[in-house]
Amino acid sequence: MEKIRVAIVGYGNIGRGVELSIERNEDMELKAVFTRRPPKSVSIYSKNVPVLLVDDMLQMKEEIDVVILCGGSATDLPIMGPEVLKNFHTVDSFDTHARIPEYFASMDEVGKQSGKIGIISVGWDPGMFSLNRLYAESILTDGDTYTFWGKGVSQGHSDAIRRISGVKNAIQYTVPIEQAVEEVRSGKRPELTARQKHLRECYVVAKEGANLEQIESEIKNMPAYFADYDTTVTFISEEELQKEHHKMPHGGFVIRSGETGRTGNKHVIEYSLKLESNPEFTASVLVCYARAAYRMAKNGECGAKTVLDIAPSLLSLKTPEQLRKELL
Amino acid sequence: MEKIRVAIVGYGNIGRGVELSIERNEDMELKAVFTRRPPKSVSIYSKNVPVLLVDDMLQMKEEIDVVILCGGSATDLPIMGPEVLKNFHTVDSFDTHARIPEYFASMDEVGKQSGKIGIISVGWDPGMFSLNRLYAESILTDGDTYTFWGKGVSQGHSDAIRRISGVKNAIQYTVPIEQAVEEVRSGKRPELTARQKHLRECYVVAKEGANLEQIESEIKNMPAYFADYDTTVTFISEEELQKEHHKMPHGGFVIRSGETGRTGNKHVIEYSLKLESNPEFTASVLVCYARAAYRMAKNGECGAKTVLDIAPSLLSLKTPEQLRKELL
Repeated sequence: MEKIRVAIVGYGNIGRGVELSIERNEDMELKAVFTRRPPKSVSIYSKNVPVLLVDDMLQMKEEIDVVILCGGSATDLPIMGPEVLKNFHTVDSFDTHARIPEYFASMDEVGKQSGKIGIISVGWDPGMFSLNRLYAESILTDGDTYTFWGKGVSQGHSDAIRRISGVKNAIQYTVPIEQAVEEVRSGKRPELTARQKHLRECYVVAKEGANLEQIESEIKNMPAYFADYDTTVTFISEEELQKEHHKMPHGGFVIRSGETGRTGNKHVIEYSLKLESNPEFTASVLVCYARAAYRMAKNGECGAKTVLDIAPSLLSLKTPEQLRKELL
Repeated sequence: MEKIRVAIVGYGNIGRGVELSIERNEDMELKAVFTRRPPKSVSIYSKNVPVLLVDDMLQMKEEIDVVILCGGSATDLPIMGPEVLKNFHTVDSFDTHARIPEYFASMDEVGKQSGKIGIISVGWDPGMFSLNRLYAESILTDGDTYTFWGKGVSQGHSDAIRRISGVKNAIQYTVPIEQAVEEVRSGKRPELTARQKHLRECYVVAKEGANLEQIESEIKNMPAYFADYDTTVTFISEEELQKEHHKMPHGGFVIRSGETGRTGNKHVIEYSLKLESNPEFTASVLVCYARAAYRMAKNGECGAKTVLDIAPSLLSLKTPEQLRKELL
């Protein structure tokens, strides 16, 4: 089997996840990991795969089919995406929802000039959740879609707590409120406030001598992040944090409740994820979209694409005949 | 807005559902209902829409963009599909799983000759369930996929009971066994027999003087249909059957449980449907794929397609820009 030759740019949690996911996809091969750190300081799982400086990517242009961009959305991808797309097909997990149209436009312009394809915003939200919102609202045109996240770690909220004076370390779990989920699942179409949908559970390691009451109050009243939610704050030791809260679970639900016909028959479509490792799952989604990028590129397509633009069969290692026989 | 002009062939439960779904899709217009019955005997919801004989379809060739085929899979579609595809783009819900490859081949040949597109096997299983199997197994390459159906009416099993001597009427519900669903949902990957996955609940109206014990025994021991399941048989009156069992609810679950990484992090992807009206939901899926057929045809595509081949954005009334802004 001719293998799809993949490179990773950025070796954090997602990059590591991509490396491990490639191991489980027999039609793929990891050719290189690119980093901005000193390559010798980066230790990867794979033997015989070079770790190189991002600046040296072009030297491997002929040996790479698709580059999976594993940088952050805030500052890395907006610069790195268009830059890499000048020479390589790319897949990334750009997830700053509000800036997706802008990022799409910049990737689309570059890709159309370079003749390369860039699949953006791949993962589960944006990603699989977006797909499920689209399918569900296209079928049940009269309905409401609800998204619940969690229980899972929100990196953004954890970071916000860590910036508070007196806080040494912290982790925040977003927790969907079961009663709200059940109400939506039952076919009702309630209007729910932020507070009615999610709880925020914070585990905080305070610095010695810090004012715990003040930390708790600062967290609970922080606008945008916590003020609109019921928030619990639990102070724990650094040891407990490392021991009990080192995993990165996540998940959530997309539920559409709607009706059909003149008598208003009710229907509920639900998609849910329970993930023990958020980055490894996201990475697995990236890897199957790398297969799609490779195939679409072979087919002459270029410019920016999202999961919404991509025929599902392009993701699978199976042939169209196998898919029809086994899955339909 | 220029509307997509749709025709329905076959006016049973699905055909009626399609008619009602078109009412909820503002970019669509029902142009005609075609039937093999005497047109005057068919009463449809829509005013000012003609009911015509199937034999007269060609007369409306210039006025129809997509034909939704609402015949049965056993005998109607294998003949009707290729016949209509000679002159019209089509969408159908062919659901005899084992014969899909054969039906695809016959539709593909005709469509490629006529330059028409035929989207086959649209609905929820085959259809949305197939899509979810594909997405889930492409992401979690190491995993197992489980499908549970119900609680819902199985037409095939109900018919099988009705053929037993002494039975006047009957309805059969397929019921997923909650314990098995929970086991799968928990991330275990059990091997489950047919009996461990589903119960079969039968409500039977016996003819006067019939031997109830014998009917019950014939049902429970019927090979393929009931012998491999735990089956309950409840005798009721025709009135009760009409009153309590006239709806056509259905639904089910596709669950994939798998792992990623070297430490084997577990993930569970679940897609579920709870449908008050099986035919109206199926019809709503057909209608949004009629939109995709229209767009793919405009794009010059032809031959047979399935839901697995179709980019999700083609289903939506929204523009790609709107979709990226609202759903990603």
